[in-house]
Amino acid sequence: MIRFECDYTQGAHPLIMERLLETNLEQTCGYGEDDYCKHAAELIKEACANDNIDVHFLVGGTQTNATVISSVLKGYQGAVCADTGHINVHETGAVEATGHKVLALPNIDGKINAKMVEDYVSGHYNDVTASHMVQPGMVYISLPTESGTMYSKKEIMDIYDVCRKYDMCFFIDGARLGYGLTSEINDISLNDLCKYSDIFYIGGTKVGALFGEAVIISNDAYKKDFRYNIKRHGGLLAKGRLLGIQFETLFTDDLYFRISKNAIDMAMKLKKAFTDMGYELFADSYTNQQFVYLDDSKAEQLSKKYTFSFWGEYNGKKAYRFCTSWATTNTQIEQLINDLK
Amino acid sequence: MIRFECDYTQGAHPLIMERLLETNLEQTCGYGEDDYCKHAAELIKEACANDNIDVHFLVGGTQTNATVISSVLKGYQGAVCADTGHINVHETGAVEATGHKVLALPNIDGKINAKMVEDYVSGHYNDVTASHMVQPGMVYISLPTESGTMYSKKEIMDIYDVCRKYDMCFFIDGARLGYGLTSEINDISLNDLCKYSDIFYIGGTKVGALFGEAVIISNDAYKKDFRYNIKRHGGLLAKGRLLGIQFETLFTDDLYFRISKNAIDMAMKLKKAFTDMGYELFADSYTNQQFVYLDDSKAEQLSKKYTFSFWGEYNGKKAYRFCTSWATTNTQIEQLINDLK
Amino acid sequence: MIRFECDYTQGAHPLIMERLLETNLEQTCGYGEDDYCKHAAELIKEACANDNIDVHFLVGGTQTNATVISSVLKGYQGAVCADTGHINVHETGAVEATGHKVLALPNIDGKINAKMVEDYVSGHYNDVTASHMVQPGMVYISLPTESGTMYSKKEIMDIYDVCRKYDMCFFIDGARLGYGLTSEINDISLNDLCKYSDIFYIGGTKVGALFGEAVIISNDAYKKDFRYNIKRHGGLLAKGRLLGIQFETLFTDDLYFRISKNAIDMAMKLKKAFTDMGYELFADSYTNQQFVYLDDSKAEQLSKKYTFSFWGEYNGKKAYRFCTSWATTNTQIEQLINDLK
Amino acid sequence: MIRFECDYTQGAHPLIMERLLETNLEQTCGYGEDDYCKHAAELIKEACANDNIDVHFLVGGTQTNATVISSVLKGYQGAVCADTGHINVHETGAVEATGHKVLALPNIDGKINAKMVEDYVSGHYNDVTASHMVQPGMVYISLPTESGTMYSKKEIMDIYDVCRKYDMCFFIDGARLGYGLTSEINDISLNDLCKYSDIFYIGGTKVGALFGEAVIISNDAYKKDFRYNIKRHGGLLAKGRLLGIQFETLFTDDLYFRISKNAIDMAMKLKKAFTDMGYELFADSYTNQQFVYLDDSKAEQLSKKYTFSFWGEYNGKKAYRFCTSWATTNTQIEQLINDLK
Repeated sequence: MIRFECDYTQGAHPLIMERLLETNLEQTCGYGEDDYCKHAAELIKEACANDNIDVHFLVGGTQTNATVISSVLKGYQGAVCADTGHINVHETGAVEATGHKVLALPNIDGKINAKMVEDYVSGHYNDVTASHMVQPGMVYISLPTESGTMYSKKEIMDIYDVCRKYDMCFFIDGARLGYGLTSEINDISLNDLCKYSDIFYIGGTKVGALFGEAVIISNDAYKKDFRYNIKRHGGLLAKGRLLGIQFETLFTDDLYFRISKNAIDMAMKLKKAFTDMGYELFADSYTNQQFVYLDDSKAEQLSKKYTFSFWGEYNGKKAYRFCTSWATTNTQIEQLINDLK
Repeated sequence: MIRFECDYTQGAHPLIMERLLETNLEQTCGYGEDDYCKHAAELIKEACANDNIDVHFLVGGTQTNATVISSVLKGYQGAVCADTGHINVHETGAVEATGHKVLALPNIDGKINAKMVEDYVSGHYNDVTASHMVQPGMVYISLPTESGTMYSKKEIMDIYDVCRKYDMCFFIDGARLGYGLTSEINDISLNDLCKYSDIFYIGGTKVGALFGEAVIISNDAYKKDFRYNIKRHGGLLAKGRLLGIQFETLFTDDLYFRISKNAIDMAMKLKKAFTDMGYELFADSYTNQQFVYLDDSKAEQLSKKYTFSFWGEYNGKKAYRFCTSWATTNTQIEQLINDLK
Repeated sequence: MIRFECDYTQGAHPLIMERLLETNLEQTCGYGEDDYCKHAAELIKEACANDNIDVHFLVGGTQTNATVISSVLKGYQGAVCADTGHINVHETGAVEATGHKVLALPNIDGKINAKMVEDYVSGHYNDVTASHMVQPGMVYISLPTESGTMYSKKEIMDIYDVCRKYDMCFFIDGARLGYGLTSEINDISLNDLCKYSDIFYIGGTKVGALFGEAVIISNDAYKKDFRYNIKRHGGLLAKGRLLGIQFETLFTDDLYFRISKNAIDMAMKLKKAFTDMGYELFADSYTNQQFVYLDDSKAEQLSKKYTFSFWGEYNGKKAYRFCTSWATTNTQIEQLINDLK
Repeated sequence: MIRFECDYTQGAHPLIMERLLETNLEQTCGYGEDDYCKHAAELIKEACANDNIDVHFLVGGTQTNATVISSVLKGYQGAVCADTGHINVHETGAVEATGHKVLALPNIDGKINAKMVEDYVSGHYNDVTASHMVQPGMVYISLPTESGTMYSKKEIMDIYDVCRKYDMCFFIDGARLGYGLTSEINDISLNDLCKYSDIFYIGGTKVGALFGEAVIISNDAYKKDFRYNIKRHGGLLAKGRLLGIQFETLFTDDLYFRISKNAIDMAMKLKKAFTDMGYELFADSYTNQQFVYLDDSKAEQLSKKYTFSFWGEYNGKKAYRFCTSWATTNTQIEQLINDLK
């Protein structure tokens, strides 16, 4: 069985495993205060070309979202996001568990935009019963989105402006960030993300690490005491160096970008094959998630050799998702393409 | 610098690293539904000699405590524990973050006992204003305790009886369980823990794994939908197999117990050295944490070559903690003993 | 200024004030354990023709919703409701503050129905990633709804059946219950509500009391320790008898229904006037809330003498809400009708 | 039965009832935005001789504590208080329900002091594992305390200084404030409380109102959006004017202080009788709560005619509490004194 159902079916990039093995019996202090974590943070600051950011390492995405969101919002505030946003759909209410409402707006191709946010937020403040409603305190987007789509730099900047206008935190979930930044249609850099968001994270779990998300806080207002928040959410890994070592490796010699690019190359090859062969795409994705309509017999045939995800039924047609990753091989893709014929 | 400040200064047991490496590029499904996790659960059931338990794998102790406690308690209930209990002291309010009060009783050598619990709980129900107070809904103990002490089987059974009487969940934090079960004064087995508690966990983070805690639910009442709870708390590791592989290795050929025993042997050697050399022990511990009073000059001298923890000042004397672990070597201990002279 | 902006612009029914005055200097115990509360509960049981219910008195609606919902749901569960539901819109996230997601379905005239609930819930359980999503643990409806509409007995029973099928609590927000039960299209009784829901409440705040909501728990599973929940949410009124005295008065000689009927009579008179005069109704309401489209000049003219609520702009037309209440007089309505001409 | 078990056994002061009756059928807007609330706030500002405070009205004490505390603290912070503090003992975990730990210090006669707070807080920040522990973010005291004792102005100022030093909010629970401010040993004014605390409240429930607590926020940092917090906690009374009318009455012609003084006079008369007759006092209280040891036969005899509270058994002696209130009459006290003989 070849797996395309998600981008975390395998372990870590071999260079990471090698480093974990090399350092395995070294003794270090715990909880991310070791030199590996410090070095990894330095490398990330370099990659961001920004020295004035705080870098924290957490284990997984849901944990990171709940930790960041609850550390930023006041009790009566909620997080504005697309209704397809991961925090709204697939985290078993982890954000609500911290006391905050997710304020879902109808998505357009998995995205929201500055105008939608502006309309929603100004609507809130113009309502005479505003204090009877959850106050929008944050905008949350995923980059790339859960639908494989990307935001342009302009779109990000516009949302950031609305956030400044209404004193909201702009938080970007980068669980698949590598697969966005290396997309051929991308025009955003890590440096831009530091400038045009308050907090974002660089996903490791889906991009070559065993696990791990690197949180970047660029707005000073949110930096203080963040470690308390991590610990309170059970996210302070005892052997924190495991995170440091992994991100150190990912941010040495551009490994993070190089392996992300592999996923994109494989995805684009698959996408081209889909369109060449006349399959109808469900979404026009330039990232590692590809969405296609399949008829039942083809879906059944493929499911004997491949795993992939049923995404929903739209107008009587069934859409499916195929994910590539840092580890997807040319052989795997070609075999799939062959079976698509 | 040789580190005795805690039991998680190093990576994982080499056999675990080997297995992680061997399986690294295999493709599996995520979130702990893979065969490694299933096999690990089977092995743990065998080790517990109990087929009627549910086994779940989480990443760390604080996360596990918050997940279990909030899944068991009703809103208005709290967890009774020793005031030295980890949940009361060192988790940045992770339990309170889920809405529950920690009901701390004064500890005796890090422990509470059935009579203390009975008095407290009956006191609650006998109070005419009971509904104005948090209802005790659970008893939480650590085995071994944060002070290195152990509960006897009889003590555990007695607390369990009080829990049955008042319909409370008995939850045992086994972050260091291996170092308790292999202590020379221990008379409890994994099978006993299944019988005389409702939920307990087998700590991996401190006992040979990179990370990971195996939660054992023996009371049917607490089994349903537990995975929802894990996900809600950000504890459902995407590459869940990493937990399965680690616990599979730990529960093959008794590795968990064999490496735990090493820590105990090293600790007992150190303890004997302390007493032989006339150092006053702060606590009479038979587990991997050893507590001793040191004068300032000795403490300062040692701190140049070793890390260890200041534990508190009592009657003008300063107590320190030295932890051994699965990875502590004879050489390390002998060097320390030499420097204690 | 004559107020139609809501149904709580005035104090309490004069008979209630009279009783509060008569009993003012009596000494009783606190927290609702006095004889007035007991008697009020008895009278409500009689009105419900059901002896096997628990009756609790709380102060306000948002407090009641949060208390009931958080006492019923497990952590990972949410409450299914119409997107127009009060808990979803106008409670500043009071439900989320207790850790639970509100699972909003698109409303039809302020309502949801059994099929919508069934589809949503079965969809949840059929999803392979169900444990990554909030589990529907309750259905919440308002009776009458925030849009003035009513559920029929058949509709209530059908939703109740779905709740039984999926082990969900069916909770009915009766903040305006009197104005529903006395509507000319109503076919539901208090006795029915005991049979076909698990918990509901009889609103006092909007129906003749200074404040107060009477919660009726008919499902034994939710009765235990409910007072702890009330206290935990700050809803246990010290001078609890104030609630008992008010509900005792409301449920003596059918006062609750008689004064509710007044609001309905006034509302129907207003509705008839609207349609007779050619105003377009925004909703076909048979309860005390009437919704009508007004052009800007008429709205402005009326706003000089009356208060009423802007409800939203639909297809370029502006809708407004006018509320009658137990205290609305014929004179007030006739004056308004006159000014509508 | 004459009741001394608490200070809320009766309704409201007759002048309040009169005003509620007079205004009963007036129409006003809801949620405390009416003129009565505005006027009441003005009167309170005058009584505080401070114009730069925000005044909000809530219904009850537990609700007020949870609302204030959760609005002030960051997630990882807790409230330092005496272990006898109301929030620690008698609110069914309402503070923990908002996610915050109550950090209880051992009380001295129901009080804590600046040194204890300083030691605790500096201890926190000096601990290398500080981020693993709940950060003290607030100091909470009750004035007078649950034990009837008072803080001097100097003691309040000293705690306030520590709060400034460590950037903590100083919050004073004034559920019985009138009974403290009119005590013969009191040297604090409302104006002082504005100066030397960040938030405090003036209790109405126990001091002449049917219900109601007036929250005074003097620190600008805590003023913004407070109404959102009230609504989120279910504390925004629909007919908010009921609170305004009551506090307007209480702060007209010094009614609040005059009726408080009555409780003190009665309490001092009772205290004198206790000591004159050789009863041993459990606490040397100058407020409306009097604590005395009674032997079993006397306690039993009295319990046939009076209600009073068992407070605890100390060194084999049983202590009881007798509360006077704004409504206690000379006749009641003299009858009790007579029966004490």
